Order: sequence, then structure tokens, then C-alpha cells
Amino acid sequence: MGVKEKVVSIDKLSFDELELELGALQRRCRELGIPVLVVMEGLSAAGKGTMINSITLPLDPRWFKVTCIAAPNDDERMRPFLWRFWRRIPAAGRLAIFDRSWYRALLDYQVQDEMEGGSVEKVLGDVRAFERQLIDAGIVIFKFWLQVSKKEQKKRLEKLQSNPATSWRVSQEAIERHWKYYEYQKSVDHMIKQTDCPDALWKIVQTDTMGDASLEVLRHLVETLRDHVLLWEEGHKPGSSVPAEKEMPSSKDAPSLRDLDLSQSLDKKEYAKLLVKRQRQARDLEHEIYRRRIPVVIVYEGWDAAGKGGNIRRLTQNLDPRGYEVIPISAPNEVEKSHHYLWRFWSDFPKAGHITIFDRSWYGRVMVERVEGFCSEADWKRAYREINEMEENFHHFGAIVVKFWLQIDPHEQLRRFRARENNPTKRWKLNDEDWRNREKWPQYEEAVEEMVRRTHTDWAPWTLVESNCKRHARIKTLDTVIASIEKKL
Amino acid sequence: MGVKEKVVSIDKLSFDELELELGALQRRCRELGIPVLVVMEGLSAAGKGTMINSITLPLDPRWFKVTCIAAPNDDERMRPFLWRFWRRIPAAGRLAIFDRSWYRALLDYQVQDEMEGGSVEKVLGDVRAFERQLIDAGIVIFKFWLQVSKKEQKKRLEKLQSNPATSWRVSQEAIERHWKYYEYQKSVDHMIKQTDCPDALWKIVQTDTMGDASLEVLRHLVETLRDHVLLWEEGHKPGSSVPAEKEMPSSKDAPSLRDLDLSQSLDKKEYAKLLVKRQRQARDLEHEIYRRRIPVVIVYEGWDAAGKGGNIRRLTQNLDPRGYEVIPISAPNEVEKSHHYLWRFWSDFPKAGHITIFDRSWYGRVMVERVEGFCSEADWKRAYREINEMEENFHHFGAIVVKFWLQIDPHEQLRRFRARENNPTKRWKLNDEDWRNREKWPQYEEAVEEMVRRTHTDWAPWTLVESNCKRHARIKTLDTVIASIEKKL
Repeated sequence: MGVKEKVVSIDKLSFDELELELGALQRRCRELGIPVLVVMEGLSAAGKGTMINSITLPLDPRWFKVTCIAAPNDDERMRPFLWRFWRRIPAAGRLAIFDRSWYRALLDYQVQDEMEGGSVEKVLGDVRAFERQLIDAGIVIFKFWLQVSKKEQKKRLEKLQSNPATSWRVSQEAIERHWKYYEYQKSVDHMIKQTDCPDALWKIVQTDTMGDASLEVLRHLVETLRDHVLLWEEGHKPGSSVPAEKEMPSSKDAPSLRDLDLSQSLDKKEYAKLLVKRQRQARDLEHEIYRRRIPVVIVYEGWDAAGKGGNIRRLTQNLDPRGYEVIPISAPNEVEKSHHYLWRFWSDFPKAGHITIFDRSWYGRVMVERVEGFCSEADWKRAYREINEMEENFHHFGAIVVKFWLQIDPHEQLRRFRARENNPTKRWKLNDEDWRNREKWPQYEEAVEEMVRRTHTDWAPWTLVESNCKRHARIKTLDTVIASIEKKL
Repeated sequence: MGVKEKVVSIDKLSFDELELELGALQRRCRELGIPVLVVMEGLSAAGKGTMINSITLPLDPRWFKVTCIAAPNDDERMRPFLWRFWRRIPAAGRLAIFDRSWYRALLDYQVQDEMEGGSVEKVLGDVRAFERQLIDAGIVIFKFWLQVSKKEQKKRLEKLQSNPATSWRVSQEAIERHWKYYEYQKSVDHMIKQTDCPDALWKIVQTDTMGDASLEVLRHLVETLRDHVLLWEEGHKPGSSVPAEKEMPSSKDAPSLRDLDLSQSLDKKEYAKLLVKRQRQARDLEHEIYRRRIPVVIVYEGWDAAGKGGNIRRLTQNLDPRGYEVIPISAPNEVEKSHHYLWRFWSDFPKAGHITIFDRSWYGRVMVERVEGFCSEADWKRAYREINEMEENFHHFGAIVVKFWLQIDPHEQLRRFRARENNPTKRWKLNDEDWRNREKWPQYEEAVEEMVRRTHTDWAPWTLVESNCKRHARIKTLDTVIASIEKKL
């Protein structure tokens, strides 16, 4: 069932008809898998709660969720500013409604001294990138700003205050903002101007008369959703245009696989000595970053049988398990597949003071997904910038980001595959996919080179690790982790 | 690949062989879908962290996860005591390792005045029921208690204190417990005795010599897991014995569908007047429970087309969306299916001060799952007690639990199905399954009667709602919610 045939001019629809139409559009979004995100912001007592109730009344409750954004709690404060919003973005076919949002920080800072999430410029940049990433992934974003006149606001605040059940809802800040109504309005206008992106325009709604306001909001929702549904039905999904070369990041200082000397090695005795020493240092540093509340993200990528597992075990062997976590990344499950590809990685971001080690990572997007065709060319080409932006977010929060590529040559890989085949206790590690991937060595090599060139940044540099000799590789990764933490301290 | 053929006496295995065997058993558990939970508790400086690292070294990191239990954070304090543990129980084939656990509260209370989670008796009861429920669902539980001598503990605490990187780890409490070593030991012995269930026995391990201790822990893990794997391979899963009638709860005061007068109705005018009044009351009460931090759980069950959706909408229409959430329950997804059936409901428990409305619920276990054969007879017969225990947990935390069964008769259902068929804007609400379910009316009716009889408790009573007249039903549910909250206040 399409919606094309029954397009009636929106202006002619009554309130009840608009409600029915919104319900039908929600079901159509569900069928097509369109994720929708509605942000409801506005002045105090502008009627955000009432408006949300009026939107949700005609909806099927199975597919929407209202999230209320208060000040961040303990756990949220220990993560980058956007973490709690990333975790709540809608999956395919779902509708997420935010009562307040990431704009809370940008607005409250106008009346407070401290800014959640760092400087205004950083937060603005992060927010713009966040919305662009969601839109490029096909999420439809609505941003409503509810506006109430000073006179009406006064009336509503007084009414809330006069009822003992609701008086606590009128905060001192709300009163202060009311006193400085026109001054505050200027900051709001400024903020709106700065975040009015073409694909996520603000819709400003006057709410002195709630009935008219609801009608306006419903109309806007129906009109915009209709357009999106039509585009999807015709196959025009957003984010499908391939970015031009100049829109894709590139680093001149990035290391290259070609420059590696894979003959580097370390003898057993020297290795044993260094290992104990480095593991002890790593443990002391683990305690130190815990005390200073610095989060550490370590990414392991590399060829099959390059020794990622063994390498990670040597890194963590002497660490306190309370301080680190290893997140192994395999193909996404049903729930992960229905979300933005970065969603699961954001969710696993370490608490400040902890270490998260990703055994494979978001770089799958520009490697296996690219080579195997699991995503479109536009998707993986866009990913370089998106990944850099995510890592920059981590960096803004004070995180240390360390990225390893474990390099071996095809002969060494073959030798290890054969050894696995012949060892009954290691045979399970090898499967048909490993052999298939091996046949695509040149394509993967090209993808790796481009990945390193495009995502080697000041805040999250790549370290290529010569891994034909596992001992050399293990000490080199330990050394790199230690040096990265010491640099930060 | 079974493990049967290669059973070698555990005592003859070297440390390296035990590690290999543990790795193999983990993979076998993965294949069979056995969930494993390891609790590591012990005295301060008894070596919990070291022991966990030594267990995890031979494991495949993709299938285990270490969780460290500190004092509960803001968000966790706003939920029942067991909430944060329920959320972290292992899925099928996964291994969850807890560094400290639900025993933290039971142990710390020995040296503190305040008890997390209520009185000791309540917590002990809740913990025992929790472990039994997990075991009945096939989760293998290990509980290790690491014991260190007073002399060795002193040495280790001093060593930690002397290193500036680790001195902060020695808390004042740890020192106090060290001073009262023998006194504290008595409380520990008592606690262990009280929670030493046949299927979740404590394993006490002396850790003055860490090497021997690791060997003992590995041996115990390998031995026990082998037994479980053998049982599973032979088809003997735990929890498969059907509970006897006397082990199943039953209430004499439970209402019955037969006593309902479905002719009850309410005229439009009276309804309109009452609705506005009740909705206003509900909103005031919503604010009041928020202020007093009381969580409210509302369950909606009922026949297809009984009017659950419309009823919920009337209840929430005037509520502040910041204070409530509607959780629609449909068939479990991939991730939910791999967990204990109560896992997703525990996860959705409201924050203190908030209302969660479940549109269908955990009662699916004893209705659709029973009637359609989606679970075994043992599973649904066990569920009555499990559900009562879960709701009692909510009650211990101070929650209000309201449960509705919306009753209509078969004629009224048919009338509504036909009306949906003929209304293009409502046709989507009706599907083949609704017709199929209708054919099983008598089986469902029997299941409903038994459900109400077995789960009608003081702390979570059922309200049967005559719903042939939707107006009557809507006012009755509003009245019941209002009365339940007022009673608590």
C-alpha cells in the first residue's frame, strides 16, 4: 500500500484526519524501515509534554519510544557528551521522540557557567556532525522549537506554582529565564541559526494556543513524512551519493604497509624479560588512568591469523580485570543490523578511567563491508569522515585512542593456517571464510592502505605492527600503549 | 564433537592441559547453548582480579564478559536490588564472570550500618530465588569464595599501600575488615551457609599460594562443566521436572472470569465527565509519585480486540510523558530469545518515581507460550512461582504493581473483528493470528483462570475489567490505578 494515490492537500485535512494520516504514515515507515527521530525543545512551560502526548495519541505504541532528557547521571557523565543520545537513536522502522535533547546542553549553558560536553564550538561541531551522520544513514529528523509569549509563559508558570502537585516543576532556572525572556530569546535565535541544517531544519511553533500549535505540528509531521515515504518508495534513499575525493579525509603522514620491515624479530630470552617489565608498567598505568578518570580505547585490526588474540592476551595478562574490557566484534546481530553501523561501538565506549579493547572494530565498514559488498560504495566512502568524527568525539572527551594494524605476509599466514589445521586444540580457530578471505588478499590490502591513509589523525593515529614475529609484535603493542598513556599523563 | 570420549581423570591433568580443556569446554558450551555464570567473591586482597585473569586467559574472548560490581550508581539505586544483576545474566552459550556480585550487599552490611536492598532476610530470600530461577533455566552457576590468611592478607595490603599507583585501592573498610579478621570470618561463614544451595554450592579456595589456588579453581571449573556438558548431550537439561501441585502457588481470594457481569456499561455523557476528572487526578498522582520516588508497574493483558490500546491511551492521555513509558510486548527477538524469559521485563523496570505500562507482559509465558506449546509444561508450571517472586521483588523495592485483565465475550470479539475488517483505517489491526487465537478460546480461558488464581497476590493483585463497554472499562482501570496509588501514599 503506497501513500501516493491518496495525497490530499494537507491544509484541507481536519485534526482527526491528520491523526489518521500520521498513524498510517507511521505504519508505512515501519514497513519501509524508515527510522524517525523527533526532537521537542522549547521555552519553559511552552507545552512540550502536552505536545508529545498529542503526537503520540494516534501512533501505534509498539513502534515509538519517548525519551526524556534530564541532566546526565553518574554513568552518562563518564562518557562523551553524545554517548547517551547515540544509544537512543531509532532503529529501522522505529520512531524516537526526545523531550529535550542534545540541545539541552547548548541552551542551558546560556544561563549556566559550566558547559556540558566541553566548549560551545566543540559541542556545536559534534552536534552538526551527529545529525549529518544520522541523516546520511536515512534517519528522518524533526526539530521542533516551541515558543510561548512572555505573558502566556508567566500565566503558565504561576499556574504550575499554585498547584502543590506541580509547583516543584518550576525551577529557579526557569524563573530566571523568564525574567531574562528577551535576552534569552536572543541566545535561542542564535543557537537555532547555527544548527539549522538543510536536512534538519528547525520548525518554530507558537504555542500560546495549544490547539493551533498541535495542528501545525501534526501538519508538519504528515507533510514531511509523506515526502520521505515517497522518496523511499521510489528508491531515493538519503546518503546514496558518493562523496567526492576532496570531501574524503587524507593524511600525508600516514604510515604504509609497504614501508614495514617484516623481518623484525625478538629472541625468546629478551622477550620474556621485556614482557614481564612492560606488563608491570601497563598495570601501574591502568591504575593511574583510573585515578585520573581517563578513558582508553584500543583498536586491534589485522589479517586472519596475524595474532590479535594472543597479542591482546599478553596486553591484558597482568591488568586488573576491573579496569579493562575486551569487546570482540563479529558480524552484527539482528538488533545491531537495524541500527546505524556506529551504534554498537558508541554503546561500548569505556567509562572514564577504564580501558576498552576492540578485537576488530568499526573499521569493518571500510574493510570487510567494502570488499564483500555488504554496504554501498557511498556508505564506505562516507565512513572515513564519520569514523574520524567519532574518534574526535572520543578525543574531545579526553580519551586516548590507540589503533593497531597487525601485519603479516601471505606466506606467514599460510604457514599459520596449516599449523592450525594440524593442531587439534587450535583447529576450531580456522574456518572456510578464512580461506576465502585469503584469496582476496590484494583487495583487502588496497582497503587497508586507504583506511590507514584516511583515518590516521592526530587524535587517533594508526600503529602498523610487524607481526611475522609474534614476540616482536606483542612488545611493540605494549610499548605503544604505554607510550600513548604516558604522553597523555 | 563430544567430550565424552576424552574424559581423563582431572587430577592427572597439568595446568596447561586444564587450560586447554577449559577452552574446549567453553566452545562446547557455546555449541550447546549452555549459559555459564561465575561469581568470584572473597576477602580483600585474596586475589580475585588475578584469579579472574587466570581463568579467562585460555578462553575465547568473544563469548565471555567480566563484570565488576562496585557500589550501585544513581541509576541502579533507582531500581530493585537485583535489577543490575538480572540485566547482566549470560545469554545462551555465553560465560559471565562477576568480580563481586549480589553477595556484595550481604557482606558489606556486616561492616556497614545500612543494607542495600532492604532487610537481610528479604535480600537472602530474593537471592536464593534468583539463583534457583537461573539454575532452573539451565544456567550453570559457580560461586567461588577466595580465602586468604590474616598474615598473608596483611602482607598484600601493605604491598598495595606502599605502591603509589595502588595505594588508593586499600579502602578504610578493607583495613577495618582486616582488623576484625576473625569476627568478619564468622559472618562470612554464616552467609555462605545460608546461601549454599545444592545446585549452586560455594567453592572455598585458599589463596595464600596463588599457583595452587588457580589450579584448584581450574580443576573445579573443568570437572563441573564436563558434567553439565554430558548431561546436556544426553538431553537432561535442568528445570525439566514438572513442579507438583503443592509447589505451585494458589490464591483463594482470586477473582474469576465467571463472576464478571459483562453487561456493565457507562453512558457517553457520564463517561466524558468522569474521564476528564480521573485523568486530572491521575496526572496529579503522577507528580506525587515522582516526588516520592515510588515506581509503578502496570500490566495490561486481555483478549485480542478487548481494547488494551485504547484503554492505555485514555490512561496516559493527560499524563506528563516524562513520567511514564508504554512497553509493548510482542514475540521476543533474537537477543531476547537467547536470554532467560524474564530478562527483558527486568530490564524495563521503571526508575523510581516513574510509571511503566506493559502492553502484554511476562504473563505470555503462562498464556500464549503455554497454549501454543512455545515452552514446556515444566517451564510454564514453574513460571507462576517465578513471576510471583519477581513481582515480590518489585514490591520489596516499594513498587506499586497493578495488573489488568480486559475481559470481553466471544460475541463482542467477533463484532469488533468484523468492524475492523470493514474499516480501512483499522484493518491493519487485524491479522490471521487473531482469527487462529479465537479458535482456541476455551484453552486460553482455562489458562487465564489458572493464571489469575496462581498469581493473585497481596503485593500484585489482579483486577478483571468488564470490557464489553469500552467506556466502563476505561473508567474502571483509571479508578483502579488511582486507588492503588492513593493506598500507597
